[in-house]
Amino acid sequence: MKVALAQLNYHIGNFEYNTQKIIEYIGIARKSGADIVVFAELAICGYPPRDFLEFDEFITLCETAAQEIAKHCVGIAAVVGLPIKNEVLAGKDLYNAAYFMADGAVKAVTKKALLPTYDVFDEYRYFEPNTAFKSIVYKGKRIALTICEDLWNINDNPLYVSCPMDELMKESPDLMINIAASPFNYQHDENRIKILSDNAKKYKLPLFYVNQVGAQTEIIFDGGSLLFDEEGELKAEMKYFEEDLQVFDIDEVQNVKSKYPAAPREMDIAQIHDALILGIQDYFRKSGFTKAVLGLSGGIDSAVVCALACRALGAENVMAVLMPSKYSSDHSIKDALGLVNAIGCKHEIIGIAPAADAFDQVMAKPFEGLAFNLTEENIQARCRGIILMAMSNKFGYILLNTSNKSECAVGYGTLYGDMCGAIGVIGDVYKTQIFQLALYINRDGEIIPENTIVKPPSAELRPEQKDSDSLPDYDILDQILFQHIELRKGSKAIIALGFDEALVQRVLKMVNLAEFKRYQTPPILRVSPKAFGMGRRMPIVGKYMA
Amino acid sequence: MKVALAQLNYHIGNFEYNTQKIIEYIGIARKSGADIVVFAELAICGYPPRDFLEFDEFITLCETAAQEIAKHCVGIAAVVGLPIKNEVLAGKDLYNAAYFMADGAVKAVTKKALLPTYDVFDEYRYFEPNTAFKSIVYKGKRIALTICEDLWNINDNPLYVSCPMDELMKESPDLMINIAASPFNYQHDENRIKILSDNAKKYKLPLFYVNQVGAQTEIIFDGGSLLFDEEGELKAEMKYFEEDLQVFDIDEVQNVKSKYPAAPREMDIAQIHDALILGIQDYFRKSGFTKAVLGLSGGIDSAVVCALACRALGAENVMAVLMPSKYSSDHSIKDALGLVNAIGCKHEIIGIAPAADAFDQVMAKPFEGLAFNLTEENIQARCRGIILMAMSNKFGYILLNTSNKSECAVGYGTLYGDMCGAIGVIGDVYKTQIFQLALYINRDGEIIPENTIVKPPSAELRPEQKDSDSLPDYDILDQILFQHIELRKGSKAIIALGFDEALVQRVLKMVNLAEFKRYQTPPILRVSPKAFGMGRRMPIVGKYMA
Repeated sequence: MKVALAQLNYHIGNFEYNTQKIIEYIGIARKSGADIVVFAELAICGYPPRDFLEFDEFITLCETAAQEIAKHCVGIAAVVGLPIKNEVLAGKDLYNAAYFMADGAVKAVTKKALLPTYDVFDEYRYFEPNTAFKSIVYKGKRIALTICEDLWNINDNPLYVSCPMDELMKESPDLMINIAASPFNYQHDENRIKILSDNAKKYKLPLFYVNQVGAQTEIIFDGGSLLFDEEGELKAEMKYFEEDLQVFDIDEVQNVKSKYPAAPREMDIAQIHDALILGIQDYFRKSGFTKAVLGLSGGIDSAVVCALACRALGAENVMAVLMPSKYSSDHSIKDALGLVNAIGCKHEIIGIAPAADAFDQVMAKPFEGLAFNLTEENIQARCRGIILMAMSNKFGYILLNTSNKSECAVGYGTLYGDMCGAIGVIGDVYKTQIFQLALYINRDGEIIPENTIVKPPSAELRPEQKDSDSLPDYDILDQILFQHIELRKGSKAIIALGFDEALVQRVLKMVNLAEFKRYQTPPILRVSPKAFGMGRRMPIVGKYMA
Repeated sequence: MKVALAQLNYHIGNFEYNTQKIIEYIGIARKSGADIVVFAELAICGYPPRDFLEFDEFITLCETAAQEIAKHCVGIAAVVGLPIKNEVLAGKDLYNAAYFMADGAVKAVTKKALLPTYDVFDEYRYFEPNTAFKSIVYKGKRIALTICEDLWNINDNPLYVSCPMDELMKESPDLMINIAASPFNYQHDENRIKILSDNAKKYKLPLFYVNQVGAQTEIIFDGGSLLFDEEGELKAEMKYFEEDLQVFDIDEVQNVKSKYPAAPREMDIAQIHDALILGIQDYFRKSGFTKAVLGLSGGIDSAVVCALACRALGAENVMAVLMPSKYSSDHSIKDALGLVNAIGCKHEIIGIAPAADAFDQVMAKPFEGLAFNLTEENIQARCRGIILMAMSNKFGYILLNTSNKSECAVGYGTLYGDMCGAIGVIGDVYKTQIFQLALYINRDGEIIPENTIVKPPSAELRPEQKDSDSLPDYDILDQILFQHIELRKGSKAIIALGFDEALVQRVLKMVNLAEFKRYQTPPILRVSPKAFGMGRRMPIVGKYMA
């Protein structure tokens, strides 16, 4: 029996698009000689559909699409993920399910048991956990079909008290198929391979694993669908960050030529780069826009975002706006123009002095006798925000936010100023990683000017300002932030690692006091195991660490 | 046996404050002759602690506080809610629990079984559901102690497949105690009474119910703790929107003089009014601020917010900023000043023309030959945003957002302009309810000028602009929005109610296209069963209804 794994890029709630794509790939798989083609978790509606699931109409549209798809399963079977109604009164109203389709109809239903409800996942918000397990027999083979998290209860500290595969093993299946919507972070590919390999080994069965690919606002699916033999050896790894379809004979899994572990895993920074490119592309494509605008300061953050945007959208679709003020240094414009010239994007130079001066004028009476302080710094940043949004409004550009994770973390940014934008491109990338990303972008020749990379970071909102006036060195800061944000350590545990006590207290307080700002920032492309946004939900008016 | 119900206002993560408060009320209850005093769900850390729960240190601080509190339980017992560790490896790491304390120590632990994970609730994100039930015996009485949602599985379409009280009934308890953190919405008090009364009737037991009171950012707890006799009759209803402690003898429940249903329930609009006042007060008090600033346009929305803020914080702590433009009508300033004079708050008049003109100047080159459009309207709104934030930054005022729910819903507002603010005061109040709220505020004499209430709503961003140029009549719009947002109906179902098909499609599309704006709005005080914010989680890049 030949199994086709179809790793596709869906669009949430775009039933026509998803349905046509699935039908197209049923045809491709059939032509490739596959007996069965496997699509991802919630393929019909895209993942995560979030509260769209609370609309009856949405569930009906999923069912209608599934029935249409089933008609095309002639001469080939398919596994397709979708949400379905729970017909029992008690419990949540839905299941996260998969239809097994053959001979033009839905032949079997599999329901998900383990519902991820942590980080960016909210599945128990919508779905009832399955408690009854049954394998599927097709062409003489017994298939243990599970959905994503159902295979993830295998580590030393399992999140769930039950284990679906233990149940399915009672029927002595011949193979495992797992359909997933398992989002990218730079640690995730290796974890995924480890967990799935452990499953294949534990159950002594070959394992066919299909993931989604593509970005849905902040969540990026990296693909990388996998095939393991019954000894847990990785036999095939599908493309990352691209659609892919591959066909494998279940009786020939041993003979698939494994490239693993011979081929080294890609560097984290390369993966982050590719993930951000896909994140930008899909944000624009799926929301129907083509052109981006951003503020280009001459600093490294906006330079990196500009380079990523040009790569994702084409330089001709990117407008860089240089907005010097009276505090801008000469190198700011020079470095920004250096990038513009190297990369070939459009640009405008719009000085903010007349606007900032006008606010000095209108605020003269209420501010009489008061000194220049953070207020006036913020006014400058907000004048830039107005200019960028005006460019967006007038020309239909989408504004890219250029804040990095370190400054998002400590609140070193101006709400409604440099924190504006439709999507945060590097808000999940620490400043120390931004330098790596710049070097990676320059790996085949200079795109980002060297001076942009080597000069000391500065917001240039007052004379001779440097980030280091207000913040610890990024090398130290990022380490403390990683311990606190990614590893969720409190102050005591971080101090115990050897960091300065007063510094740790100060950093954690900055992080927690900045919750009110982060609440209002754009969605941030998620590339780490713990990104700001839907995966990190903190009180605003809370005292702990604030 | 005498039971004291202690209905208190906690502060999330403020262990010192919460602990001292609980210890103080243990003393008060003892003096009042109570044998046991009952505090709310998660009283020790406040509700909802959200991802603070993921920090081991936070859980340790809860336990330390509990041990301190237990020492004070001498001559009186106490029930106190807190998160505790799950000592079993499999499953989530925590339980939502209550300690029964007596004789200076923790004597028993009760764990929550039904974990609300919908709307604003995320409990399964953190907690393992309890599956083992045991009542507590104290002074010869057997107490069935449950936590909030554990009693809510009683309706026709239960959310859960198990029912904790059915288990506890096997031990023939003498009474039920339920500790809760059950947030306000204008429909909730009657639901709560109905559900709890049904429990008392079903199990033929008196029921003592304690809720939290006070606001935690957007979530407002209304108190209203309750006592039912074993026939389900409501015997006592504690204060709403205030702390309260009352003592009841469990052998005298029948003799408590019920005021219900003789006393009519308060009108929705009065409840909303009181909830918003508490919401403002607690936002300021718990974040350590005292003074508010807002833009006062002469229109009804900002007038209502100004009146609420003056009531909540004192007029002397409220700064109203009037920001006329060249499109402002004469009555705008006149009406705004009318309110300022009636209410006695501070004010500034800061014309935006110089700032708006400066942007015309700096954008002259890129915008050459292009007509005035939405871009220039937005620039005006954003100039106002800058001015308000400058007042906030310079003087330490907190900016109140004045957007109403109707405009939040359809995206009729300027991101980084009138959508600025630290907290959205009326973002969960439809425009048609704003009129009711204005009349309620004026119930004992005119505070909000009549002209502000009766004139046609206008953003005044271009000559002769009216809301009705862009939006359907609010009477119709709000009905459609209510069907879609509160009742989660799709277009077909709303059209079936008799609304115009094209209008419904247009409104739903506006709602869904505005997700990107709402993602970046301030937290909104929640007063309805379905507010924008953490309780409504929609995809941004999604096609369904967009």
